[in-house]
Amino acid sequence: MAVRFSNTMLSLKPSDIGPLLAIIAQPDIISFAGGLPAPQTFPLKELTEVAVKVREQDGAGAMQYGPSLGYMGLRKAIADRMNRMYVPMGMEAVDPKNIMVVTGSQQGLDMTGRIFLDKDDVVLIESPSYMGAIDAFSLNRPRFIEVPTDDQGMIPEELEKILQKEPKVKFIYLIPNYQNPTGICMSLERRKKFMDVVTRYDIPVFEDNPYGDLRFEGEEIAPLISMDPKHLVIYSGTFSKTLCPGMRLAWLVARDDIMKQLDRVKGSTDLATPSVTQREVAMYMTNYDFEGHVQDNCRLYAHRRDVMCNAIDKYFPAEVKHTYPHGGLFLWVELPEGCDSRDLFKYAIEKKVAYVPGDAFFPVSGKRNFFRLNYSYTEDDVTEEGIRRLAEALKEYLASR
Amino acid sequence: MAVRFSNTMLSLKPSDIGPLLAIIAQPDIISFAGGLPAPQTFPLKELTEVAVKVREQDGAGAMQYGPSLGYMGLRKAIADRMNRMYVPMGMEAVDPKNIMVVTGSQQGLDMTGRIFLDKDDVVLIESPSYMGAIDAFSLNRPRFIEVPTDDQGMIPEELEKILQKEPKVKFIYLIPNYQNPTGICMSLERRKKFMDVVTRYDIPVFEDNPYGDLRFEGEEIAPLISMDPKHLVIYSGTFSKTLCPGMRLAWLVARDDIMKQLDRVKGSTDLATPSVTQREVAMYMTNYDFEGHVQDNCRLYAHRRDVMCNAIDKYFPAEVKHTYPHGGLFLWVELPEGCDSRDLFKYAIEKKVAYVPGDAFFPVSGKRNFFRLNYSYTEDDVTEEGIRRLAEALKEYLASR
Repeated sequence: MAVRFSNTMLSLKPSDIGPLLAIIAQPDIISFAGGLPAPQTFPLKELTEVAVKVREQDGAGAMQYGPSLGYMGLRKAIADRMNRMYVPMGMEAVDPKNIMVVTGSQQGLDMTGRIFLDKDDVVLIESPSYMGAIDAFSLNRPRFIEVPTDDQGMIPEELEKILQKEPKVKFIYLIPNYQNPTGICMSLERRKKFMDVVTRYDIPVFEDNPYGDLRFEGEEIAPLISMDPKHLVIYSGTFSKTLCPGMRLAWLVARDDIMKQLDRVKGSTDLATPSVTQREVAMYMTNYDFEGHVQDNCRLYAHRRDVMCNAIDKYFPAEVKHTYPHGGLFLWVELPEGCDSRDLFKYAIEKKVAYVPGDAFFPVSGKRNFFRLNYSYTEDDVTEEGIRRLAEALKEYLASR
Repeated sequence: MAVRFSNTMLSLKPSDIGPLLAIIAQPDIISFAGGLPAPQTFPLKELTEVAVKVREQDGAGAMQYGPSLGYMGLRKAIADRMNRMYVPMGMEAVDPKNIMVVTGSQQGLDMTGRIFLDKDDVVLIESPSYMGAIDAFSLNRPRFIEVPTDDQGMIPEELEKILQKEPKVKFIYLIPNYQNPTGICMSLERRKKFMDVVTRYDIPVFEDNPYGDLRFEGEEIAPLISMDPKHLVIYSGTFSKTLCPGMRLAWLVARDDIMKQLDRVKGSTDLATPSVTQREVAMYMTNYDFEGHVQDNCRLYAHRRDVMCNAIDKYFPAEVKHTYPHGGLFLWVELPEGCDSRDLFKYAIEKKVAYVPGDAFFPVSGKRNFFRLNYSYTEDDVTEEGIRRLAEALKEYLASR
């Protein structure tokens, strides 16, 4: 005998993100590769106050095992906020019993993959889509289909064509607001048409909404969960981008039968999300100005988006295109057809600047003439200098072809 | 089309733990069913101090994303403590790079199941074994084999017989110290023989050690990881029983190739364990008297074990036997052959007292004449009254047969 890993593990493509991160971690590299919130947005004074109060007022509860669905105080605060925001947009009021607190939205992705997917089942995703979701679902060895997607989001007519011929579709994953990696926001009309198709075909939808609160301009567009008569939407929200990622707190909303399956998995995978951090965030939401804090974040990130976009317009060659996101943390750069962002990467690293090559976001088509930039983390002068370096790399790369 | 869950989810036996917990949650029931630490053991003053200091001194790190393997400060503190305790017993020094912080030991169980198990692969377990581990591994649809186990632990000769004829064994799961549910501690001689077999057959071992620190009397027995020339042991430790479960902090030790696979799963399932709680516990371990705190816990739990055992000896019918654990949180009760702890449960609930029926711990044999009692949570007078009630239920049940 010998130590033998599962076929699932052996089937996974070796991830190159690790080696990539090792390159990027060199101290003199300016990295636009991550997706880190700016640390100055963390409300440390308030988070210290709630940490003390929670331990003083409810220490035994905070340090004890808790229910697998999460701390009811936090589930209620989340339901209240969602109902305040989305019931006026047409959402049926969410009951806290249909909310589960998870240890970061990544855990919600993982659990959703596990409750739906057997080997060779089909997951539909936007093209491109978030690589963390692709990673999570991959542990169940599904087949991905990239649904054609344009600057309004996933195209409903293309979705329907796929649903007509693919019997093994288990769910659709998408990020309607300020998508990762593109920064694109799905239009209201698209959302309505999309939910019409989904409702007719009775297909579950994972609505991943980490960036919806980070809206810089434009009217808020109703979430998919507000157009969902059959309750097919599993809605995912997170505190990682509005408050801080270090607590690993996010939540899922799902109808009873789906929640029952999620709960079964949650209990088997980590019993419950930490009791203490859940209480801290519940107290923060209840006793402090969370909405004001979110607006402060939006102002900072809108400014940083402008700094990056202005620098791109100033330095980049004209044939390189980019999205102009109205929210979120990322923008998406398109190189001329035939270019390879992996080849460009070598030039970029020589110039001491980094990004995420785009092919990681296309699990099927593997398109190579795109890359993702993050603008939330770097200070203005660093962003400007990084974009200047990247422009140099671009010019040298394009000239070499 | 319709909403269709995975075959894996559909194959799971409906858990009756949920309904059972609902019965037990009635306020006038005395429950010995849980496994909760006593809340008065939580060092709240110290945990408040570290919460404040971590936010003051390293707030940006505490609230930001962290590495999937965990916060290096905590991994080093864990390695230092393990090396201090077990290197004198023969363990090769653990390098922090071979430690991963996980979100509760349940997550380590889940991840281990995922890296090794395909459907119909075999997991060997003690008979009986911890139901939470059985739940976690079940998500991969393996076949369990209960290895014959006596009051010294798993029997190496029986293990070898199984290894000779079962080619699909992927790993062995056991709890050598104060086992859940039996409270039994595996003897040194057994451990040596066990590791001899394991080493010859080259089979990974999950050494789950949540209770080893809670030793009430007797010499400490060397862990399996100290007798492991091929590094086949995946060692799991936790802060849930020594410090508090509400932070959900535990760790795994594994050799490089196994850790690499675990890391792949960890990154896809929740990215990383919360940065903030890891820093708090690292600071607690470094700046406070953790060992003294653990000894305080041991004194309390040894006392509570005595209260329960004395009450059992005073009230229970003579034909009902029980283990006398020298550590941990649980003891195990054996009813006369032919009795059914599920039938007894109805009598117990009428008397307003509860436990966990034993068949949940025997996934294959489903033996029904056992149940588990927890003594760590209830105050002395409550324990005495609960055992008195349970004795009444026992007498009525035995008389009814």
